[in-house]
Amino acid sequence: MVDRLDDAARARALADLPEWRLVDEPEGISRRFIFGDFSAAFAFMARVALLAEKADHHPDWSNVYNRVDILLTTHDAGGLSQRDIDMARAIDALLAA
Amino acid sequence: MVDRLDDAARARALADLPEWRLVDEPEGISRRFIFGDFSAAFAFMARVALLAEKADHHPDWSNVYNRVDILLTTHDAGGLSQRDIDMARAIDALLAA
Repeated sequence: MVDRLDDAARARALADLPEWRLVDEPEGISRRFIFGDFSAAFAFMARVALLAEKADHHPDWSNVYNRVDILLTTHDAGGLSQRDIDMARAIDALLAA
Repeated sequence: MVDRLDDAARARALADLPEWRLVDEPEGISRRFIFGDFSAAFAFMARVALLAEKADHHPDWSNVYNRVDILLTTHDAGGLSQRDIDMARAIDALLAA
């Protein structure tokens, strides 16, 4: 079991993730990614899928052609947890690599 | 350019796709797929991605853990076209194989 972040912890975490925004219902963080085409978008999704499976923490996500929208939330915690923050950082690191 | 199906052609096509339902805004057809886990769901998505890239006709789709929701529509036609019907059949064939 993992705890939902309190307000202070959430604020600290989000300060380090400027590309992600806080969303409600469910409480989580989301980011939109735009690629050159579907092939590039799906290649990114494949890498995120591997991260997600390894962490056993899976995104709510959608794709339309070159666009990927990712929402991270922790259903068991009823909101945003450290697992979401860690996954967001790992996803961002894919793009930096 | 591909034409939007007229009412008669749409009705004929949907009669052969009982698992797909007609949706509005955008006009298209959608189907929900449920798998045993994320790994199985994403393996299916990888196969659909290959079909989509080959046909140059890409789904609007989302995934949450073991669930994949696919919407097929033809933006250029302003609605449902034969390309969507062909893609739905190809996707269904993946599950039958």
